[in-house]
Amino acid sequence: MTPDQIVTEFIGACTRNDMDAACAYLADDVVYDNVPIGAMTGPAAVASTLGPFNATFDEIDWVIHHQVATGTAAEGVVLNERADRFRRGDTWVQLDVAGVFEIRDGRITLWRDYFDIAAFQRAFAPPSA
Amino acid sequence: MTPDQIVTEFIGACTRNDMDAACAYLADDVVYDNVPIGAMTGPAAVASTLGPFNATFDEIDWVIHHQVATGTAAEGVVLNERADRFRRGDTWVQLDVAGVFEIRDGRITLWRDYFDIAAFQRAFAPPSA
Repeated sequence: MTPDQIVTEFIGACTRNDMDAACAYLADDVVYDNVPIGAMTGPAAVASTLGPFNATFDEIDWVIHHQVATGTAAEGVVLNERADRFRRGDTWVQLDVAGVFEIRDGRITLWRDYFDIAAFQRAFAPPSA
Repeated sequence: MTPDQIVTEFIGACTRNDMDAACAYLADDVVYDNVPIGAMTGPAAVASTLGPFNATFDEIDWVIHHQVATGTAAEGVVLNERADRFRRGDTWVQLDVAGVFEIRDGRITLWRDYFDIAAFQRAFAPPSA
């Protein structure tokens, strides 16, 4: 697989909320860095953070506007621009994101997403009681 | 010039705050979109926004962590991950940014920077009186 394919397949698994499939693309020491929130390390941390979050939605679609890759699966970099969309009931919310993925030995060693924390909070504010 | 070279030269001109040189890389209908703040159109708007802002600093250095390009100068895309650093006196401030550049006919038609508005405000808060 190319770096581009690895990231595309990883994102596909995330949007199906198939954390087992997603984690198969992650290195044991993967760093998952949501820039304005903070970073975590390891596939288990990614799965236990993203899985329950994703599970609160009825449908997930991360639209890739641009994705550009360089290098090989042995050592590569993929950058993308995305609209991460999440549906609950009839309502879609969207977070505009720019992602950085570093690949080594066929797996993702760094996943860093740039976004605005205020936009995140607006999109994912808990429903009022 | 390749899309990669166009963006690298454009960024070099910005960090020298040479707005004439920078604007030579911008299409007449360029859109400059600071995602959490808003978008503007046209080289004159870019120059009149960025120039006076940059002029308040003694030194500017935008460190490019990754930059990946595809296509040609006729139609291309460049994505990068940067640390935009600004020095005033002895103090450097830094904004972590992911940038998207669309190129057409040798010039930049879209420059979109993803960052966190709270980080921007922390970095560039006016000095207290």
